[in-house]
Amino acid sequence: MTLSMYSASVPVFSRMLKNLLAIFEKAEAYAAEQNIDLQSFVETRLAPDMIPLSGQVQIATDGAKGVSARLAGKPLPSWPDDEKTFAELKQRLQKAIDYLATFSPEDFAGSDDRTVTIKIGGQDTELTGETYLLNRGLPNFYFHVTTAYDILRHKGVPIGKKDYLG
Amino acid sequence: MTLSMYSASVPVFSRMLKNLLAIFEKAEAYAAEQNIDLQSFVETRLAPDMIPLSGQVQIATDGAKGVSARLAGKPLPSWPDDEKTFAELKQRLQKAIDYLATFSPEDFAGSDDRTVTIKIGGQDTELTGETYLLNRGLPNFYFHVTTAYDILRHKGVPIGKKDYLG
Repeated sequence: MTLSMYSASVPVFSRMLKNLLAIFEKAEAYAAEQNIDLQSFVETRLAPDMIPLSGQVQIATDGAKGVSARLAGKPLPSWPDDEKTFAELKQRLQKAIDYLATFSPEDFAGSDDRTVTIKIGGQDTELTGETYLLNRGLPNFYFHVTTAYDILRHKGVPIGKKDYLG
Repeated sequence: MTLSMYSASVPVFSRMLKNLLAIFEKAEAYAAEQNIDLQSFVETRLAPDMIPLSGQVQIATDGAKGVSARLAGKPLPSWPDDEKTFAELKQRLQKAIDYLATFSPEDFAGSDDRTVTIKIGGQDTELTGETYLLNRGLPNFYFHVTTAYDILRHKGVPIGKKDYLG
């Protein structure tokens, strides 16, 4: 196999979101066992002005959706960020996984050079598809998946790197 | 430009480590301003059995070094994990940035299909270069860079996503 814009994005997003969903299952089992209110996970932040777990999941899934749609030149679905419970966050992860499954490698032909316009610091900025994926899409996605993991780990959920890597 | 094994690895690692080094500079300035002992940053963990900031930097830089050397089929330099101070962690980041600059795109020709053998769960496992980069190298690297950021953010350092993304 040769590395491609598709192989470097859609299956990566899908794999990591499935791993995160499995981590959420472990968090749920742990909360039940320890009599912890799952809602406390949803609202936990690593710093008072950081985004809580709910926002981390919303932004990670938004990233996976947005990068895939923009690179494939497809319309960007709008998902309201209205998840308020742990169960809804799991549904959001599944929704993104299902959406990613609608893309095929052919959708990404030529996307290395496709111009993608995104806001950076409030300014419309044009990037090639490759720069967008490598310098914005992937680091941003990994940021929120890892921070979601870190929040749950910080709350005592017994997970390890193996769960994150799958 | 067409996405390549080189463009998806070396410049990405280099960029993110430079961003992390700039974040470390901000952390240093903040600590001086607030009279915080920098050593407290070095030893902070997000959970009692998680790796502290020092280990996050060691593993992130090890990952960048190891993935690049393995994909290029070059000997793997061994770096002792003996950094104990914030200044030494900054040196470790710079050392990795300098090492990454020794690679050229040509070193990575054909590395998509090169067999890479790594230990997974204690077992020698053979992966193609592409699978190694996408499913292990990049997610692992981003995990430790993000967790280093999260630790400093948790300690109150005034940084944001812009610092992480560069």
